[in-house]
Amino acid sequence: MDVVTYRPDPSEFAWTFGGVPPVRKVKPGDLLELWTEDAFGGKVRGVDDLVSKVIEFPFVNPQTGPFFVEGAEPGDTLVVHLDRIRPNRARGVSGQVVAPHVVDPGFVPELPAPDPEGDWWSLDLDGSTARLEDPPPGLESLGELALDPMLGCFGVAPPRGQAISTATSAEHGGNMDYRGFRAGVTVLFPVFVEGALLHVGDGHALQGDGEIVGTGIEVSMDVEITVNVVRGKTISWPRAEDDEFVMAVGNARPLDQAVQHATTELMRLLADDYGLDYRASSALLGQCVRYDIGNVFDPAFTAVAKVAKRLLP
Amino acid sequence: MDVVTYRPDPSEFAWTFGGVPPVRKVKPGDLLELWTEDAFGGKVRGVDDLVSKVIEFPFVNPQTGPFFVEGAEPGDTLVVHLDRIRPNRARGVSGQVVAPHVVDPGFVPELPAPDPEGDWWSLDLDGSTARLEDPPPGLESLGELALDPMLGCFGVAPPRGQAISTATSAEHGGNMDYRGFRAGVTVLFPVFVEGALLHVGDGHALQGDGEIVGTGIEVSMDVEITVNVVRGKTISWPRAEDDEFVMAVGNARPLDQAVQHATTELMRLLADDYGLDYRASSALLGQCVRYDIGNVFDPAFTAVAKVAKRLLP
Amino acid sequence: MDVVTYRPDPSEFAWTFGGVPPVRKVKPGDLLELWTEDAFGGKVRGVDDLVSKVIEFPFVNPQTGPFFVEGAEPGDTLVVHLDRIRPNRARGVSGQVVAPHVVDPGFVPELPAPDPEGDWWSLDLDGSTARLEDPPPGLESLGELALDPMLGCFGVAPPRGQAISTATSAEHGGNMDYRGFRAGVTVLFPVFVEGALLHVGDGHALQGDGEIVGTGIEVSMDVEITVNVVRGKTISWPRAEDDEFVMAVGNARPLDQAVQHATTELMRLLADDYGLDYRASSALLGQCVRYDIGNVFDPAFTAVAKVAKRLLP
Amino acid sequence: MDVVTYRPDPSEFAWTFGGVPPVRKVKPGDLLELWTEDAFGGKVRGVDDLVSKVIEFPFVNPQTGPFFVEGAEPGDTLVVHLDRIRPNRARGVSGQVVAPHVVDPGFVPELPAPDPEGDWWSLDLDGSTARLEDPPPGLESLGELALDPMLGCFGVAPPRGQAISTATSAEHGGNMDYRGFRAGVTVLFPVFVEGALLHVGDGHALQGDGEIVGTGIEVSMDVEITVNVVRGKTISWPRAEDDEFVMAVGNARPLDQAVQHATTELMRLLADDYGLDYRASSALLGQCVRYDIGNVFDPAFTAVAKVAKRLLP
Repeated sequence: MDVVTYRPDPSEFAWTFGGVPPVRKVKPGDLLELWTEDAFGGKVRGVDDLVSKVIEFPFVNPQTGPFFVEGAEPGDTLVVHLDRIRPNRARGVSGQVVAPHVVDPGFVPELPAPDPEGDWWSLDLDGSTARLEDPPPGLESLGELALDPMLGCFGVAPPRGQAISTATSAEHGGNMDYRGFRAGVTVLFPVFVEGALLHVGDGHALQGDGEIVGTGIEVSMDVEITVNVVRGKTISWPRAEDDEFVMAVGNARPLDQAVQHATTELMRLLADDYGLDYRASSALLGQCVRYDIGNVFDPAFTAVAKVAKRLLP
Repeated sequence: MDVVTYRPDPSEFAWTFGGVPPVRKVKPGDLLELWTEDAFGGKVRGVDDLVSKVIEFPFVNPQTGPFFVEGAEPGDTLVVHLDRIRPNRARGVSGQVVAPHVVDPGFVPELPAPDPEGDWWSLDLDGSTARLEDPPPGLESLGELALDPMLGCFGVAPPRGQAISTATSAEHGGNMDYRGFRAGVTVLFPVFVEGALLHVGDGHALQGDGEIVGTGIEVSMDVEITVNVVRGKTISWPRAEDDEFVMAVGNARPLDQAVQHATTELMRLLADDYGLDYRASSALLGQCVRYDIGNVFDPAFTAVAKVAKRLLP
Repeated sequence: MDVVTYRPDPSEFAWTFGGVPPVRKVKPGDLLELWTEDAFGGKVRGVDDLVSKVIEFPFVNPQTGPFFVEGAEPGDTLVVHLDRIRPNRARGVSGQVVAPHVVDPGFVPELPAPDPEGDWWSLDLDGSTARLEDPPPGLESLGELALDPMLGCFGVAPPRGQAISTATSAEHGGNMDYRGFRAGVTVLFPVFVEGALLHVGDGHALQGDGEIVGTGIEVSMDVEITVNVVRGKTISWPRAEDDEFVMAVGNARPLDQAVQHATTELMRLLADDYGLDYRASSALLGQCVRYDIGNVFDPAFTAVAKVAKRLLP
Repeated sequence: MDVVTYRPDPSEFAWTFGGVPPVRKVKPGDLLELWTEDAFGGKVRGVDDLVSKVIEFPFVNPQTGPFFVEGAEPGDTLVVHLDRIRPNRARGVSGQVVAPHVVDPGFVPELPAPDPEGDWWSLDLDGSTARLEDPPPGLESLGELALDPMLGCFGVAPPRGQAISTATSAEHGGNMDYRGFRAGVTVLFPVFVEGALLHVGDGHALQGDGEIVGTGIEVSMDVEITVNVVRGKTISWPRAEDDEFVMAVGNARPLDQAVQHATTELMRLLADDYGLDYRASSALLGQCVRYDIGNVFDPAFTAVAKVAKRLLP
């Protein structure tokens, strides 16, 4: 096992999953000590940086990587253990107004226009809290919020020779914005290309379900990841596991279809790993499944189906 | 304040919200001590009762009531505090196979056919646990599950002179199958008709998110409810509050639209009750909203948007 | 065969499908000569009648009827032949701005606010044309449009003892706003209650696909209908037939689900009436099906699947 | 103006939009005389070629091209006139069973399993008809169907450095499977990269709306196209024009969102090209818009909104 340390130069950011040559080769078991830039490429640093002027949208969520994992072949599964996700700047930025498509269409005209600067948050990295620097009227007493650092956008190269924007998600992972992807969690991705090509980025110091303002508290991160490969194990969608749950992810629109993908993949997981046929997994999930919502902001929405490990044989 | 005790005769069940005369008049502040039948009208009692023979589907979710609440007028809000929800039979029944529309369409042919008898669960009412009586292969070691009793289907008469089946849901509540509607929670409904006409039924001893096998553990219940009215307060969708959260409910298909309704109503709630304009509620919800999923089984799906009360001014 | 002539007094309008006693009994084979009021109950007659003041929304689409058809029992099919649909007033009214949910959510703030008076159209009933009385800038040269009179909202009493608003649609028909329901077409409805209870209303002198401004050219109509019953023939969704096509209707949201219902029902129709199994109907529909869109405005959207009769055995 | 003739070697097929170097440079005004292979790469030629063995799925819809159009810059519009689309083989193949997601989920188990060989059609290229070679029982009398050749999959390189599979569609066009893209039609695409990079393929000799069996009658084609560029004209989605209509295309799931995209783009088209503000286009489209359905088979569905040119100022 090696420790691979890597901090990309801005010219090295990947803006798609796929279509980008690897920046490093790593071996199963290696520990990756990475630095990830924030969703805006680090170009927004304060209220003087107008987002609309500085950022060359629609390029968001620069990725650190990709990393070629030796021995990973199409049809295998890449295992990504999130050892550590820690903000490394003392300020983060967030969107100011809920997206028009997450409210009733007739309610949209009542929404205010967002300022292009976004909301800025001071992060106390030792105390693990965030505080709105300039709270809008009504939130003056909000005070400090506990951080819950996570990765919003990570995954592998997609199938069919594609290169897919870091603004969206699919079978290969991508911009899922699921709060549950925090330190301590193991995430599994299907391998579609030789070397899997792991990309990592878009850290959020904190984020609500749905990422409904289009962002979490966006900030650069120190990320430590251990990679492994399960040869010959084929999965269809990202899976995950933490101390309490096994999980399956679906990315699609409408959200109903994301739920279908996640439920189907969780049933396959329970068959693969616990020997439960679909009659048994139906009986179990019917009374015990939990659904979480990743983002409902991006072109593809994210649903997570999970079940407690203590209930499994 | 009076205590109103009522147990319906099977002939008195209501099978629609609206279109049914009230069974009792009650006053704001009254405590209702009710008995609710299970979703199948109590006609399925064991493996000898073929569901398909005994039950005259599509009549499900018989309601106890409706109750005419004195002083409730259209445009008011009905306040329903769930004091107690306790199973009163020692057995419950559940569906056996996930619904075809909650998995990938191409996966449907892999699902087994359900037996019409359903799965039977022994309920230990003192120990508050449930145990599968005849677990399918693979679940032999499942053991006892902690009960989490809830109401699957309750609400008021709908607007526009309608009578809507207890199999679905809309602005008036109905068959939402949300696990969060447990004892200790206060639920608010818009009042569309004089007297509001509260209906209560469809208790579940336990249920997973989504009610994806079409049922929780269906069982009759002892239900205690305190009703009140807020005159002149108009809401658009059910709202709720427990010790930790304020919540808003949306019922629609696709799930995306349910999320839109719930998010919009939560923003209205935060404006009504906490004085937050939509700029402030956007900033708060962006980083702190939680979404829960009620059923994704019925014609209308249910989403709940909620935020912790400790974060509110 | 009798001729049954009926023009409702405004106090006799039905505002729900179901929950309303019949106004007449008719026999299979009878010709109904009816008068239907416009969608706004005839209360909007010109620019001095502010829609928002005059109309007690949300009551729209008053129905003439219902008519009890002797011999129609649950499980039968009601056959409704549209002999004649002719506007009987020289002016009609329409909505002015597309509904927010038929455009991109981010585009909604660019839409103008509609005037409450609506757009008024002069109808030349002999020449069968309509002309905008006060065209907005840019449409001065629009000139005369050929009328294509149709029924927007009609159907039977729904199942499960329900009473469903005339603002929406489901298995029983209702507010489908399909341009194809014009004179010469035969429409079949499932019978859910004794007598079927036919309701008829919401005539449009002209309407685009989708009814995207929320209305067609709304006008009162002289409607002639011949009713019949097919005993023992059970259908799940409305079906129809004209000189060229056989059709099946699905009403649901999202539109994808309406397409699923319509496609499934058309395959059942081809099995029932032409003996085609699903392998044969797949091969035929794959290369020859046509989809039409009814309204995408109401709570339930309408899709129509159809195939040319000349292609059928 | 030059005539550019090109027939790709199988090794030259493009399987993504974007990510592929151009095969030729062409100039605005050039006529492209192209040969396009069928959706299966020409590898399925008869009942002895088991689709499942021959085809390396998921690679479908090989593209001829891409062609670099000189002078086309991001923000411009590429104009593609379809001069000729003619099958050049005497046999074509189609799917045999409707896709599970276009019927009711509960109906899926009633569908037969498709044979991997597909249905074969004899094409009379002079008479412009197709005939099922081995019609399934019930379709023996189907006889000859008139051809209506079209392009199922064509478009330009997508934005954001992406390479998107030819199995789906988005703003750049792609696998839209719209019957209306036949000879005589002019299609406009947004230009996202220098040279636009036009790809052309997936000809269908005939196809029903929705492409619900997953294919039209798939066949190789002789295609003649004239390309042009409108400098400085920026569009968001494909637009089109034929003798009768102007059109706008939306590609998304659910179909509701495709309708939103298409309607919004048509309103922008009417503003750009005819000076109609959104008040005027609302009044016009409300009574005169037509919606067509492209495929409802692929990951993204296709809707087309159109209005007759004779109604425009």
